[in-house]
Amino acid sequence: MTAVGIIGGGQLARMLALAGYPLGLTVQTLDPDPGSCALALTQQLVGEYGDGEKLRWLAEHCHCLTYEFEHLPVESLRYIADRVPIFPPLEALGAAQDRAEEKTLFRELDIPVPRTANISTLAELDAALTDIGLPAVLKTRRLGYDGRGQRLLQDRRGLATTWRELAGQPLVVEEYVPFERELSIIAVRARGGETAFYPLVENEHRHGMLRSSAPCPEDPLNQVAQQYATRLLNAFGYVGVLVLELFEVNGRLLANEFAPRVHNSGHWTIEGAQTSQFENHLRAILGLPLGSCRPVEHCAMINLIGQLPDPNALLAIPGAHLHVYGKHPRANRKLGHVTVRERDPVSLAQRVQSVRALIDSPG
Amino acid sequence: MTAVGIIGGGQLARMLALAGYPLGLTVQTLDPDPGSCALALTQQLVGEYGDGEKLRWLAEHCHCLTYEFEHLPVESLRYIADRVPIFPPLEALGAAQDRAEEKTLFRELDIPVPRTANISTLAELDAALTDIGLPAVLKTRRLGYDGRGQRLLQDRRGLATTWRELAGQPLVVEEYVPFERELSIIAVRARGGETAFYPLVENEHRHGMLRSSAPCPEDPLNQVAQQYATRLLNAFGYVGVLVLELFEVNGRLLANEFAPRVHNSGHWTIEGAQTSQFENHLRAILGLPLGSCRPVEHCAMINLIGQLPDPNALLAIPGAHLHVYGKHPRANRKLGHVTVRERDPVSLAQRVQSVRALIDSPG
Repeated sequence: MTAVGIIGGGQLARMLALAGYPLGLTVQTLDPDPGSCALALTQQLVGEYGDGEKLRWLAEHCHCLTYEFEHLPVESLRYIADRVPIFPPLEALGAAQDRAEEKTLFRELDIPVPRTANISTLAELDAALTDIGLPAVLKTRRLGYDGRGQRLLQDRRGLATTWRELAGQPLVVEEYVPFERELSIIAVRARGGETAFYPLVENEHRHGMLRSSAPCPEDPLNQVAQQYATRLLNAFGYVGVLVLELFEVNGRLLANEFAPRVHNSGHWTIEGAQTSQFENHLRAILGLPLGSCRPVEHCAMINLIGQLPDPNALLAIPGAHLHVYGKHPRANRKLGHVTVRERDPVSLAQRVQSVRALIDSPG
Repeated sequence: MTAVGIIGGGQLARMLALAGYPLGLTVQTLDPDPGSCALALTQQLVGEYGDGEKLRWLAEHCHCLTYEFEHLPVESLRYIADRVPIFPPLEALGAAQDRAEEKTLFRELDIPVPRTANISTLAELDAALTDIGLPAVLKTRRLGYDGRGQRLLQDRRGLATTWRELAGQPLVVEEYVPFERELSIIAVRARGGETAFYPLVENEHRHGMLRSSAPCPEDPLNQVAQQYATRLLNAFGYVGVLVLELFEVNGRLLANEFAPRVHNSGHWTIEGAQTSQFENHLRAILGLPLGSCRPVEHCAMINLIGQLPDPNALLAIPGAHLHVYGKHPRANRKLGHVTVRERDPVSLAQRVQSVRALIDSPG
């Protein structure tokens, strides 16, 4: 049987494993947390992501390696990349780890981006704001996720304080984009270069965290989003799922960032697409043909953050599909998601409203 | 987290586990085979199904027990049934284990059945054939599955030989039914008595083994099939999935047998229904609300028996969903299945033809 190694044992690894067993795979994960949520259903090595010995073990025992998040020591992975195929390519991982490098790449590929500047001193920040204008967003170049490592700058008051909070790390400052919508496109490229695209997804964030996603197959922006994603995929000779996050501003798309992995905004594909992002990622990295990305009925995905709703109430809502990750509840922690699938958009909207009402009601 | 114990570690346990993790369950299996196909993704106890010590362990560590096949020692289970809920009810399990008892029950519930007789001597068989006529089918009362323990009697020649092959076991002889179609209905009953029904399924068998299944939501026989299934469910105060196998003869339905568990003819529900039979079985036994059984698009399921096709060729067929069970290939062994799902019946028929051509081609 083909063994796939996944670096990271979080919910993405868990859902990759759930998609992998029907394909006949065995799944080996590596995670420092002995209580990781992939533990119950995969073989798990407990160790740091950069643990050379554990990585070599994975290289020896797996046919192919992948990873489920981007804050990994690229150098450690490069060390085993000549022993076992690792996908997505480490060049994509490296670029995604650094907001400055990522933005440079977007520009090189003629993918529009908000105005940005790299800064390393308060004086540089001050000068950059004169160019870029206010409001603006100050971000760490590395290790940001779910809104962490970001500060909105409304004006110059308190600039020094904000600076001190993030100082000591390489930073970028970006134009604050008054977007109409946040969108993402989930793309996949096979080993042979074949590509496939899920419909553009509209995402709603709150406090920097994704709250809900819904596919927009009829959106006229699908074509341009696919063009941008294609440029990224081909630039890396990419293999696997890649997600490009976009802002829509005055009908134009600006690239925000990309993730070299399966992504929260693609969880709806489990019920809502012919082939899920998880299965397509596995098919791609194993050199199998890609599956169809077409939507199945109408759907929307809502994250379960901080606490889980009463499953009795949730599962009584027709069309609601519960996905629990097996994590201990904690504020601002993604504990699961719900995908609602219905035959028509009107029923879908009603069911989604019921799910939201349940989630937002005091537990 | 809620722990579900499954007695048996075969493909049904594997697919129950795959449906259980998204609901936040942990899954504990009991199987004598240390290489069972649920092993990779569940916690498995290795032991006989009737192993008292192992069963007590399950009773102590699980919130609820279920089973994935019917040839279990009911007495051993009864012994722990006061310590932990076991569903489906053991009365249903007992009835399903004995073809004579099963047929008696059908008659009591006014569910039409083929003519049958219980026999224990060759003289009784001879007399029964005079009543029932020829051809007829001689079956062991217990332990039959996938066509095993059955002999077709075309005429009285060789009757003594056939008798000797099966002798020593309690037998039934049944009228050979010249059916137009083999059908099954997958029904589910919640702890509170709520019931739900998947559409009637048309099944094709070859050499006694299920080869393919396809749902028939528009079939006018759905209503009467649901009535028969309802009588069975209510007779037992049933909880979980129950499958009733039926013959269609001259537009009438005759009951063949029932299974107190998830069933091969319901595998299409993973992609082809709003809620799969596996998830609905778990919801039922855990006291959760049942999910919708309505079909999602059009689909058909084809079993992979004896050998697996080349996954490259199979996954290149649009709409084909592969389910591999992780078992070693062996003649007449169910190694997996493929469900094809498409938006329209014409595309579905084409894709199914491609899958069949691939499976039937010399490996």
